[in-house]
Amino acid sequence: MRALAVDLGGSHATCALVEDRTIIRAKTLATEGSVGLGPILPSLAAALCTVMQEAETGASQCAGLAFCFCGLVDHAQAKVISTNAKYDDAPRLDLKGWCEKSLGVPFAIENDARMALLGESYAGAARGFDDVVMVTLGTGIGGVAMIQGRLLRGKHSQAGCLGGHFPVLFDGRQCTCGAIGCAEAEAAGWSLPEVCRTTRGFASSSLAKDPITFERLFGYAEEGDPVAVEVRERCLAVWAALTVGLIHAYDPEVVIFGGGVMKSASMILPYLQSYANRHAWTPWGKVTVRCAELGSRAGLLGAIPLLQGRAAS
Amino acid sequence: MRALAVDLGGSHATCALVEDRTIIRAKTLATEGSVGLGPILPSLAAALCTVMQEAETGASQCAGLAFCFCGLVDHAQAKVISTNAKYDDAPRLDLKGWCEKSLGVPFAIENDARMALLGESYAGAARGFDDVVMVTLGTGIGGVAMIQGRLLRGKHSQAGCLGGHFPVLFDGRQCTCGAIGCAEAEAAGWSLPEVCRTTRGFASSSLAKDPITFERLFGYAEEGDPVAVEVRERCLAVWAALTVGLIHAYDPEVVIFGGGVMKSASMILPYLQSYANRHAWTPWGKVTVRCAELGSRAGLLGAIPLLQGRAAS
Repeated sequence: MRALAVDLGGSHATCALVEDRTIIRAKTLATEGSVGLGPILPSLAAALCTVMQEAETGASQCAGLAFCFCGLVDHAQAKVISTNAKYDDAPRLDLKGWCEKSLGVPFAIENDARMALLGESYAGAARGFDDVVMVTLGTGIGGVAMIQGRLLRGKHSQAGCLGGHFPVLFDGRQCTCGAIGCAEAEAAGWSLPEVCRTTRGFASSSLAKDPITFERLFGYAEEGDPVAVEVRERCLAVWAALTVGLIHAYDPEVVIFGGGVMKSASMILPYLQSYANRHAWTPWGKVTVRCAELGSRAGLLGAIPLLQGRAAS
Repeated sequence: MRALAVDLGGSHATCALVEDRTIIRAKTLATEGSVGLGPILPSLAAALCTVMQEAETGASQCAGLAFCFCGLVDHAQAKVISTNAKYDDAPRLDLKGWCEKSLGVPFAIENDARMALLGESYAGAARGFDDVVMVTLGTGIGGVAMIQGRLLRGKHSQAGCLGGHFPVLFDGRQCTCGAIGCAEAEAAGWSLPEVCRTTRGFASSSLAKDPITFERLFGYAEEGDPVAVEVRERCLAVWAALTVGLIHAYDPEVVIFGGGVMKSASMILPYLQSYANRHAWTPWGKVTVRCAELGSRAGLLGAIPLLQGRAAS
């Protein structure tokens, strides 16, 4: 089965033709200059047509267009619910109408984190599993859930996609989401610098020299910098507690970790697997903790299961 | 519609005949002396027959028997999965066969916390809502979820029923479930004495005089005892963080609080409603926080929706 797919991020859009578990052809457009989604829809349609032509595929051979969107989406209504500052015209657009008119294929849209989970469960690290949680550790923390083969969505499309915003420190830091002590506020890319700066001894730590990233944190910790070691251990403990919370919330068989922070997977993953083995309450057996496999291709590879309605909730 | 219902707790079993949202007649048996569930099944069947006779109702007029069990249940297989020490023969019993043979009616079984949520959503505080979280604050903390009219169950029947075991303090206390810093380990009946004893100034607090209960905690805090005030504020903060975690996990419209601790609802509920209003990430509107209404009747009143399959997941 073939399908069209768009993965729309903050600064670029990838337009692709996929066949089952393979991306046949893809084309990436920069979207940085655009103020909204409306103005770039014609370029997206043109790119999708180019991709089809290059692969000698007609729209009639495509099951539809699967659109991964970087914001809250109402899948059933095929509507964007809310976005960050970028693409803030999206909730007012008739994307389904645009797709049918300009491409002549059925349209489906879903949040990008949920699409990545669909991709990993169809063609990646969670292949063969119907009960999956996926955590993305990056600038923020994403957390999405599939239960018995269906994406968890809930009444307002918020269920099973705010996994980075479970409070793991009830008297902790203010999160950008409004809550207090979310995993994201305690151990993600945007909150890491503040966590480091408020750790005793920071001024004399190697971390004080350059902009703080997880890569530098893990590097300095490896070299024995005591502040870096302390913050690294704290981040691991936060992610571990979140992992247990997600397991208790959604009853998965496997938890997949992706995102930029997983460059240090060889250190992070064994810690989280061991913690889950010891501390998650799963009388049925042990949850498997794995690295995501598909990277930025995951959302595109979620196209087929999305269009087949395998993710229906 | 009429149905039979059994609510089996640790020390007693209530056998009832219900009609829609009313308990027509009920009979409670002590089960304290029994080592297992098998030996008391004949008394349960006899009590159900008595209740039917007294209400001049035949088995043929009953849609079935709904069984609320105090442990983990596989609803689809109509089997108990695991129990605490009490009734540890239950996973090996053919309860469906027993019911059909001794009462001649269809059988359905579910965990007692999920049944209480069903009851509250059918006939109590959550009536009219399809997206509900119920939290029970007592010796432990229960937390169950209904999404779009269906109980969340998951692959191993653990999804949406371990709400008391979301870690809210990543470096907190060991919980009896195996995890660290669960809401239950930080602010429930069994953990409260230890939380008080490790609070600075405990020896000179009124709390040091008698066995510690939430009733005494709230009473002494009202009188201005500084340790009691500090622990009360800490418990409220734990429950508030848990409430936000549950809202982020399950996307409910209403969160119902029940359990013995809610004797102090007039103080607890406004705190939690205000906290949820300020800190839960719900762009669609505000989650309603309410007291449970049905008390110990909730599980029995879940019988009709359970037997009608309204809770199917």
